[in-house]
Amino acid sequence: MNSFTFFHPTRIIFGKDVENQAGQEARKYGTRVLLHYGGGSIKQSGLYDRVTASLREAGLEWRELGGVQPNPRLSLVKEGISLCREFAADIILAVGGGSVIDSAKAIAAGVMYDGDVWDFYSGGAFPQKALPVGVVLTISAAGSEASNSSVITNEDGWYKFGLSADCLRPVFSLCNPQLTCTVPPYQTACGIADMLAHVMERYFTPQRDVDVTDRMCEALMIAIIENGRRVMADPNSYEARAEIMWAGTVAHNDIVGVGRSGDWSSHRIEHELSAIYDIAHGAGLAIVFPAWMKHVYKHDIPRFKQFAERVFEVTAGSDEEVALEGIARLESFFREIGLPVTLSEAGIPHDRLDEMAKKCAWRSADVGNYVKLTEDTVRQVLELAK
Amino acid sequence: MNSFTFFHPTRIIFGKDVENQAGQEARKYGTRVLLHYGGGSIKQSGLYDRVTASLREAGLEWRELGGVQPNPRLSLVKEGISLCREFAADIILAVGGGSVIDSAKAIAAGVMYDGDVWDFYSGGAFPQKALPVGVVLTISAAGSEASNSSVITNEDGWYKFGLSADCLRPVFSLCNPQLTCTVPPYQTACGIADMLAHVMERYFTPQRDVDVTDRMCEALMIAIIENGRRVMADPNSYEARAEIMWAGTVAHNDIVGVGRSGDWSSHRIEHELSAIYDIAHGAGLAIVFPAWMKHVYKHDIPRFKQFAERVFEVTAGSDEEVALEGIARLESFFREIGLPVTLSEAGIPHDRLDEMAKKCAWRSADVGNYVKLTEDTVRQVLELAK
Repeated sequence: MNSFTFFHPTRIIFGKDVENQAGQEARKYGTRVLLHYGGGSIKQSGLYDRVTASLREAGLEWRELGGVQPNPRLSLVKEGISLCREFAADIILAVGGGSVIDSAKAIAAGVMYDGDVWDFYSGGAFPQKALPVGVVLTISAAGSEASNSSVITNEDGWYKFGLSADCLRPVFSLCNPQLTCTVPPYQTACGIADMLAHVMERYFTPQRDVDVTDRMCEALMIAIIENGRRVMADPNSYEARAEIMWAGTVAHNDIVGVGRSGDWSSHRIEHELSAIYDIAHGAGLAIVFPAWMKHVYKHDIPRFKQFAERVFEVTAGSDEEVALEGIARLESFFREIGLPVTLSEAGIPHDRLDEMAKKCAWRSADVGNYVKLTEDTVRQVLELAK
Repeated sequence: MNSFTFFHPTRIIFGKDVENQAGQEARKYGTRVLLHYGGGSIKQSGLYDRVTASLREAGLEWRELGGVQPNPRLSLVKEGISLCREFAADIILAVGGGSVIDSAKAIAAGVMYDGDVWDFYSGGAFPQKALPVGVVLTISAAGSEASNSSVITNEDGWYKFGLSADCLRPVFSLCNPQLTCTVPPYQTACGIADMLAHVMERYFTPQRDVDVTDRMCEALMIAIIENGRRVMADPNSYEARAEIMWAGTVAHNDIVGVGRSGDWSSHRIEHELSAIYDIAHGAGLAIVFPAWMKHVYKHDIPRFKQFAERVFEVTAGSDEEVALEGIARLESFFREIGLPVTLSEAGIPHDRLDEMAKKCAWRSADVGNYVKLTEDTVRQVLELAK
């Protein structure tokens, strides 16, 4: 087991109607709030009214910055930084899913930094402090509500880069499963793929001997698949929505990742896809992950066999057949919940694979920790995804 | 799923030699440290020297209070409170296992309270604040290094009561598995029983529909049993000690307990045992838990069947037979690692069962949440433990 630090300061407040606690929780960090959100859905659903009523009741002042898009953009982050500085915001309240939270985290770090916030994402600087970020979660997917990471897209070149830093962990997250009952089936499925991918990235690791973490990863994958099916069949089930919401948090708060390095190639490759094509991150992962598995499984058949046996209860066949059957079952599961598993199924043409492979390998010689990929082998993964 | 708050602010720093970070971590909370520990083993092992060197290097002043006994006593807690006040301690550094940490937590809460610290344990008051507590962990067992709980024994009547409060969570815990390689086999086994019991108390719950938590509980129980065997066979294995140490933390930091209530009868009953007989808590649990299971399993055969199937891979027999076989396998496991599973095996006479049952039920009409026990039914559990 590798040495590690596990630090999870985010207070998760989970259950029905918890969004009404936004004001009292934010009040612990000051009186001036930047309210950050995406499109108009929170206004249509009445969530905006409930959250602002809660802020008002707690005696807070706020400014608003809406308009966060999926694959959140650097330009809006910069606008947020200016707004926080003008308004002297004490806390940023992100009302939304992963994109809104990631955007809020970028603003939070950028406010405390004299340089260009993109430095944090390009690797030119590392954030030591950030404004507090609070969350009202509306989509179960990214796990950003308790993670230390943020992914931002720079429109200048369509680079989509991630950043991980402890100071980015939200100070609180209000997680009400009821709010996710109206998430449409396709977005629900994308969220399921995203959280499953967060576990799998941690599961495929070069380190052995982290049995507690292995078992917990498998437990979570089984629960995500079972409850994923349940929530697709019965979108209004509070219980199924609650399982999926909590699973999404646990999948990315690092409790299933400690003591070893994850792989993260599939995320890196997917970022190239969604930077260019604006495909939902979860759908991109449903395409890239099985392709990546087909490319790397021979490197470590015992591990892929363990995955197949313990997560999908595959029993029959040679070791390699069992390993391959596990990958096939994962693909079937993604198809079953309505996701594409090839580029063609997602309507993505095959003419920019070279460009994506090049950009993926651009920042470092190697992509991935479990199996190191190069520009060439990233290209091969994309080929398998066609 | 019940509504819940998950708040885990403790920074877990895990790996070889992490005790040398004690000074730099404590320094974040002030300059005056109460160093709290048990018997002389930390001096013999050289740990005391390494920790104090680290404090010295960080420029910290400290006072010492050793002598914490297993089942930590109220009288020493009171001594610690006086010492902290006289010295104006900024932080308490607990170097030891669950008893030392629990004692430190009691002191930390007591320092901030004008009344008698026992009020917090008897239910007469609730702590809102406490001095920060840091930990150097030497035994994998109690999970107190990241939990919000503390158990103290009042010598006046030999009452052993627990307290849970967020302000009791340590601010940091330095967890070096190497330090546990010298823990003798019996204490190692007691620790394994303790952490397994922490998961089982959460697993046997009246709430349904917490599948993520169920699966994670099962994952952890499997990992504890597998690695428990490994560590008993090879006490110097860093890898096995690391699995067990991390499992002990996860078993009680509440990640496997959210969204539902646990039972905790077995802990309540065991507290009566170890308050009178000073048996190790883990050994007491190895006696009480199987007896409790035999008393309650008919109440919920499907759940005991799931436990048997998923944790011990029991397959053959009627539902009731499978359920009973799971309990038998748990008993066998405890015996295998060298623990008593009856009062007689532990050399405990049977003449004070009435008194223990009475004290157990003394504070409330009911004991337990999964199955409510009364004085009479606690007596029946103890009878099954004979």
